[in-house]
Amino acid sequence: MAFTASFFFPLLLLLSAISGIASETAIRLPSENLVAGGNRKVRADDGIFCDSWRLAVETNNVGKWKQIPARCAAFVQAYMTGERYLSDMEVIGKLSSEFARSVRLVGDERDAWVFDIDETLLSNLPYYEDTGFGTEIFNETSFDQWVKLAKAPALLPSFSLYNELQELGFTIFLLTGRSEQQRSATEANLLSAGYRNWNRLILRGPSDQGKTAAQYKSEKRSELVDEGYRIHGNSGDQWSDLWGFAVASRSFKLPNPMYYIA
Amino acid sequence: MAFTASFFFPLLLLLSAISGIASETAIRLPSENLVAGGNRKVRADDGIFCDSWRLAVETNNVGKWKQIPARCAAFVQAYMTGERYLSDMEVIGKLSSEFARSVRLVGDERDAWVFDIDETLLSNLPYYEDTGFGTEIFNETSFDQWVKLAKAPALLPSFSLYNELQELGFTIFLLTGRSEQQRSATEANLLSAGYRNWNRLILRGPSDQGKTAAQYKSEKRSELVDEGYRIHGNSGDQWSDLWGFAVASRSFKLPNPMYYIA
Repeated sequence: MAFTASFFFPLLLLLSAISGIASETAIRLPSENLVAGGNRKVRADDGIFCDSWRLAVETNNVGKWKQIPARCAAFVQAYMTGERYLSDMEVIGKLSSEFARSVRLVGDERDAWVFDIDETLLSNLPYYEDTGFGTEIFNETSFDQWVKLAKAPALLPSFSLYNELQELGFTIFLLTGRSEQQRSATEANLLSAGYRNWNRLILRGPSDQGKTAAQYKSEKRSELVDEGYRIHGNSGDQWSDLWGFAVASRSFKLPNPMYYIA
Repeated sequence: MAFTASFFFPLLLLLSAISGIASETAIRLPSENLVAGGNRKVRADDGIFCDSWRLAVETNNVGKWKQIPARCAAFVQAYMTGERYLSDMEVIGKLSSEFARSVRLVGDERDAWVFDIDETLLSNLPYYEDTGFGTEIFNETSFDQWVKLAKAPALLPSFSLYNELQELGFTIFLLTGRSEQQRSATEANLLSAGYRNWNRLILRGPSDQGKTAAQYKSEKRSELVDEGYRIHGNSGDQWSDLWGFAVASRSFKLPNPMYYIA
């Protein structure tokens, strides 16, 4: 190992090597002047800022947010309509598939996988394309009109995973923040997008209104566990699809830089 | 809103608009031929794959992993030594700072913030530069030699946050997977990197050996809560720094595509 060798080098050489790295990176040498270090700036470039903002969103570092930053509108549009979103989805799909294939199913139809719907099984990109890719505040009325159309296309990597899970013998639950009033439109959309044979489509009923998504979805997962289901996997584009209680053995966070749901 | 207008357009036009998007993205139209959709491929480009892999790492979608993919060695090196790592760290530092300034401190010295050390307050980049940026399997012996040198530089965005938190009145705890045998080297390194006035440096004692980081760190945070501390914030580069029980009000996941700790 290179380090083992350099460990015996004179200290000056080592410090020189460290210093060479420090000049390009986020680190501060113990011997460096703080102000000098503090003066280094990241290029005030929308691309690099928006990429960091997107990472912060996907890791839940941003906390609650209502709109994407105005300067990131073009970035989010390019991301969502280009190959990066597809690549991110595909890598996560493959990781989900690898995990699924590693699970030893009991075979009693109690081996379960939970999917969210919006931006997980179905894509609302046509709607968000018409409303600024998350630059506008969410408008429930116009979104409900879009849902009624039942025209959201399938997200391909999720569609492939969904079918593979069924072949493997998983029981599939769909757990969505959509309301019971949207059941028939949602079923029609899922069917026309090609999804088949889910065990149960769980929507928000009257008693679920006003709960956070994380609370509502945790409660519903907990009911599945009480029924004897082993929730091996859970796929969703929001951390509130995945966190809380009765969490799956493995949770898969799909990308979504367009909106946030608590 | 543009959508409201297009809602009344002929269905054909709407389908045509959706179809235009679908050709570039991850979505599959209900009417599309599945095989045609499934045949679309992401460019087999290391850059885009490795960027997706990095996102999957940062969102904990990869699960346990021991080495970065060989094809991503150059990508991780470029990321860690270039402006993107710095930018990602700075955006998270600003989000942490915004949250910290929003907290109403009680002022009884029980308002706490927990920091991890490695790749959080201190950077081991000089070590990882000599050992392939995570392409090699972790070697505890050589890493311990590096720790003894006490030469890890400070990560600037964390250093700024650390100082701001102290000015705001937070009590700072350092919670690290390093062992008690490394206490003096760790203290010397923190001091020479410029860190001052932490309340307590918590390292793994004999009874903590063999526990996962998530278990050990959760237990230690729980002890702080039992002592009456309110853990408002927690900063760490591993999800095992942040998840488990006695979690902070807000957790900040710092980037680290070089290694994984369970």
